[in-house]
Amino acid sequence: MRMYDIILKKREGKELTTGEIKYFVNGYSNESIEDYQASALLMAIYFQGLSDRETADLTMAICDSGERADLSAIPGIKVDKHSTGGVGDKTTLVLVPLVASAGVPVAKMSGRGLGHTGGTVDKLESIPGFKVSLEPAQFIDQVRNIGAAVVAQTGHLAPADKKLYALRDVTATVDSIPLIASSVMSKKIASGADAIVLDVKVGSGAFMRDQQSALKLARAMVDIGSRVGRRTVAVITDMDQPLGFSIGNALEVKEAIDTLKGQGPGDLLDLCLELGATMLLLAGKAENLKDGRTKLHELIKSGQALNKFIEFVSTQGGDPRVAREDGVLPAAKLTAAVPAPASGYIRGINAEVIGRSAMLLGAGRENKESKIDLSVGIVLNKKVGDTINSGETLAVAHANGTERLEQAKELVQSAYQIGDVKPEPQRLILGTVPGNI
Amino acid sequence: MRMYDIILKKREGKELTTGEIKYFVNGYSNESIEDYQASALLMAIYFQGLSDRETADLTMAICDSGERADLSAIPGIKVDKHSTGGVGDKTTLVLVPLVASAGVPVAKMSGRGLGHTGGTVDKLESIPGFKVSLEPAQFIDQVRNIGAAVVAQTGHLAPADKKLYALRDVTATVDSIPLIASSVMSKKIASGADAIVLDVKVGSGAFMRDQQSALKLARAMVDIGSRVGRRTVAVITDMDQPLGFSIGNALEVKEAIDTLKGQGPGDLLDLCLELGATMLLLAGKAENLKDGRTKLHELIKSGQALNKFIEFVSTQGGDPRVAREDGVLPAAKLTAAVPAPASGYIRGINAEVIGRSAMLLGAGRENKESKIDLSVGIVLNKKVGDTINSGETLAVAHANGTERLEQAKELVQSAYQIGDVKPEPQRLILGTVPGNI
Repeated sequence: MRMYDIILKKREGKELTTGEIKYFVNGYSNESIEDYQASALLMAIYFQGLSDRETADLTMAICDSGERADLSAIPGIKVDKHSTGGVGDKTTLVLVPLVASAGVPVAKMSGRGLGHTGGTVDKLESIPGFKVSLEPAQFIDQVRNIGAAVVAQTGHLAPADKKLYALRDVTATVDSIPLIASSVMSKKIASGADAIVLDVKVGSGAFMRDQQSALKLARAMVDIGSRVGRRTVAVITDMDQPLGFSIGNALEVKEAIDTLKGQGPGDLLDLCLELGATMLLLAGKAENLKDGRTKLHELIKSGQALNKFIEFVSTQGGDPRVAREDGVLPAAKLTAAVPAPASGYIRGINAEVIGRSAMLLGAGRENKESKIDLSVGIVLNKKVGDTINSGETLAVAHANGTERLEQAKELVQSAYQIGDVKPEPQRLILGTVPGNI
Repeated sequence: MRMYDIILKKREGKELTTGEIKYFVNGYSNESIEDYQASALLMAIYFQGLSDRETADLTMAICDSGERADLSAIPGIKVDKHSTGGVGDKTTLVLVPLVASAGVPVAKMSGRGLGHTGGTVDKLESIPGFKVSLEPAQFIDQVRNIGAAVVAQTGHLAPADKKLYALRDVTATVDSIPLIASSVMSKKIASGADAIVLDVKVGSGAFMRDQQSALKLARAMVDIGSRVGRRTVAVITDMDQPLGFSIGNALEVKEAIDTLKGQGPGDLLDLCLELGATMLLLAGKAENLKDGRTKLHELIKSGQALNKFIEFVSTQGGDPRVAREDGVLPAAKLTAAVPAPASGYIRGINAEVIGRSAMLLGAGRENKESKIDLSVGIVLNKKVGDTINSGETLAVAHANGTERLEQAKELVQSAYQIGDVKPEPQRLILGTVPGNI
């Protein structure tokens, strides 16, 4: 088998065999295939696509490039959740204790943030003492004991994905649906879950900018799950404006805690109930979505979800007072209001621009080496559909210096679209793609 | 400027600026741009193409990656000829002395053969003593003195082409018309000629398999010439069967000498007269093509063309007796007839298969490191349109051992298509694309 022939075959739009796909991934992993041949193949895939079968084969070849987490010691159906990334998306912080309190074990491996989207692991680190690296045995034990654990993803899982992603990142081959789908699913499958709930974000703050692309990506990922025996459901959700009000690590932890107390933003609660109910359904802990939502709502109202959060945080070394007291999370030194330049209805909030303004303040990484400031960020005062008067506060910037503050404020202001006409209400849950197993 | 953005822009089908194309070629030449980004761009170009302006810019950027030959010391209009490569194509061996004898100076840099197509430099080396490397000053002096010189192309001309071609060769991005056109034309322009005649081959033995692709390539190359101020004409010629009867280095030199004596195959003579007349026209040495053909025919009949060949060979150190005596060129030890498996008309001869059978005997290189045997090859007895009886000789294989002889004979036999119906006569000159300067 020759890599040249594989590139040519894909360039001509033909379907690669399972063996050819394995040959490529193995060869690229063990460095017998060079970067320049890999990037030529990736660009050919960008143009010619991959069939569902090829995408599943690619996923499994990437998954098999490293170890797989073995969660078999944890009783019950393990359900993982993955979001394609958005601005203000703190659903994992809410869902882990919420779903665990319903009796579904959650053994979660999460990533760090990059660019304008945040990462769960960074957010959790804003809780003083919280440790995101656990030994595998410790991780399994914790899930067995308290039903929930979150650790930082390691390079041992699907290492070929890391290598391929780094190459795609510099060769303009990131935004290919089969390549995105296989990248996400290879890591989820390597993480060892029995079932997977995917939150595919669409809109100005998401990787997928239109519903058609989001639907395609959702279908591609669900198809992979079905082909490799993992019950998978994708929920397509709106990311045209930030989720909730807070953007920035500690600020988002605070909002997640509020949500667990029943005092969070409506959109965040709705999304958590939808995704959580889907997780319960896949785990066999709910009759249907409505039943799942009701159960989860009860767990919030009764305080059991918050208690699970406290247990989870303290087990991982974090300060449990974070759930009850102010002043535990790091706070920025300065706050600065962003005034509305006009009166009217908020017709839109560009989520990416808000994400970039938070990044400018230090909340996100511009590249993999950037240090982040866990205390800073943006808290929105107004969301789409609200009314505002000129000069009133649109949002508050939390900063630790004045250096980039003005620029961030201007960005926030520019993200808001204000007009005379009341906007059509935007649905949060845009669709669901159920798997066929 | 970032290479990433250039790849993305081309991937999206947008036109690159002159500056972006220069940035890529310069960066790739000086190794500030990596192979994996270059191959991603080449694959994007394969799919999205290049505009005529981009193709000309790429050509000049590649040309400017090295030195340009300075032929200004040679008086008159210097006309170069380039063939896209075929089987049995010994036109350069005929044209150099023929056109020089008509008073057109020919300063020719030629390549070696690869795969099933031969190279002029290899063929000339079958003449005992012939030297294909001359110092630049020596090269110019020889053209000034006797009107003709042929040297092996050096890496100093268009070095970026060499680097890019090597990358294309392993990433399945060779067969892109703008990339082929810029590769050919960058070398021709760097070679210093004032005008260029291109022989674009089409058919089973050529790189371009159909007339439409050949026409596209011809137009692309002529367009480049017009844009950069070189009078360029492309002639599209048939390569569906081998040119002439002989395939193999020394065998082809013999046939070229026969042609200069007026005793060569009709198709080879016709092609040499057509290409030669076009060269005369561009050099201002003929009123029109007909006049050019007549003049060249006269030079053959009068023996002046052969005398020029003898002068050219001896000036470059070759044994001039090659033109008059047998036994000077290296000869193979064995000859073996390939019998016809059936009676009928020769309806087709797959030129690539004939080329591969000659390569199998040692006449061509399988890769750049292969040694070649100058004496071996195939001499066809029958060409398309001839009749044959079963068992009669189709062709004769010239070999130096029996090892691959049977395999080569079988290949030759399989290349012949014999049938009951007389084939339509195939035109040799399929079209001409004149430049607009």
